[in-house]
Amino acid sequence: MAQMTLYSMPSSGNSYKVRLLLSLQGKDYMHIPCEYGTEALTQAKATGKAPLDKFPVLHLPDGRILNESNAILWYLGAGTDWVPTDPFAQAQMLSWMFFEQNRHESVIAVRAALLCYPERAHLATPERLAALLEDGNVILKLMEDALVGRNWFCGASPTLADIALYGYTCTADTRGGYDMTGFPRITTWCARMASLPGYVTLDHLP
Amino acid sequence: MAQMTLYSMPSSGNSYKVRLLLSLQGKDYMHIPCEYGTEALTQAKATGKAPLDKFPVLHLPDGRILNESNAILWYLGAGTDWVPTDPFAQAQMLSWMFFEQNRHESVIAVRAALLCYPERAHLATPERLAALLEDGNVILKLMEDALVGRNWFCGASPTLADIALYGYTCTADTRGGYDMTGFPRITTWCARMASLPGYVTLDHLP
Repeated sequence: MAQMTLYSMPSSGNSYKVRLLLSLQGKDYMHIPCEYGTEALTQAKATGKAPLDKFPVLHLPDGRILNESNAILWYLGAGTDWVPTDPFAQAQMLSWMFFEQNRHESVIAVRAALLCYPERAHLATPERLAALLEDGNVILKLMEDALVGRNWFCGASPTLADIALYGYTCTADTRGGYDMTGFPRITTWCARMASLPGYVTLDHLP
Repeated sequence: MAQMTLYSMPSSGNSYKVRLLLSLQGKDYMHIPCEYGTEALTQAKATGKAPLDKFPVLHLPDGRILNESNAILWYLGAGTDWVPTDPFAQAQMLSWMFFEQNRHESVIAVRAALLCYPERAHLATPERLAALLEDGNVILKLMEDALVGRNWFCGASPTLADIALYGYTCTADTRGGYDMTGFPRITTWCARMASLPGYVTLDHLP
């Protein structure tokens, strides 16, 4: 059977989410790494492989293309244990995934990018870094509170919500500069994620 | 039967999406308006009605609470004609909805808010407005291109993707200051949305 092809950025949390789910599911796929600033990325964009100009992008064997990390998670996870069947639980899972793309990634991933990619350093003013630190701590507090009495964000087992939130939370400290000592439930949840069979780590920065 | 209760901000596109779908579906619900800067909003937050500190929030008759506009759309639309049944089409619909929350709302809604809410005026520097104009035009161009040969964003009939994208696109000109003359397909699609039976307009700004 022809393979799926994933165009993904090795250093990006959004791309990592998809590679993580594929690994946890034990699914076979062809990986085209398109790192920030590389010829591979330029080439992929120039040849129409990323129609919305972002990575990751999933190409099905029949040529159909799917954009957006969390939509790709949905496509790969639907009908499996990664997506609850109860309609309300399903909506709650998506709620965390929209929260992640709207409020979490836009702050925590952005601060990490400012600190880690030399190309963004000129945008990393002290005022902006301070605002992103404050806003990120609010987001992390919402997550910490949601984990009271729970092992996972939705229901009794891991779902796509956990994978989506994990993508950039796992490097909030090392890349984003957030002090996680105030968020012990998140820290334990991260360790729980890392102990899942088939887990893979995020690649290092280029 | 007990009614659903929607806490929503009359002037907000995110809140409008949910009111629009409920109206198009002819669904009955109780509406608690929580406008920016009002006592109603302060009260709703203080009494735990908005656990993630944002609106809209849907409260079910049994007390369960759902956050995030697009997750609420999913909950109300799942199992109806607003959500395609084909797994790939469903993922494509979600792809536009994540695109909307990550790339569209964060630019087009933000520019509109800077221009329309007096409380944000101090953040509306010429540099920021110019950057948001440029970024927003890129987003609108991606939408314009996606509408080539299509009446709706996914498939042959309107889906939740159309409602999600419409929420802030319908005021991109009047509130956001985007010149829509370069995006004729979006303009026609907006008119198509406004002609759907049960359509309601977005409330005016406070």
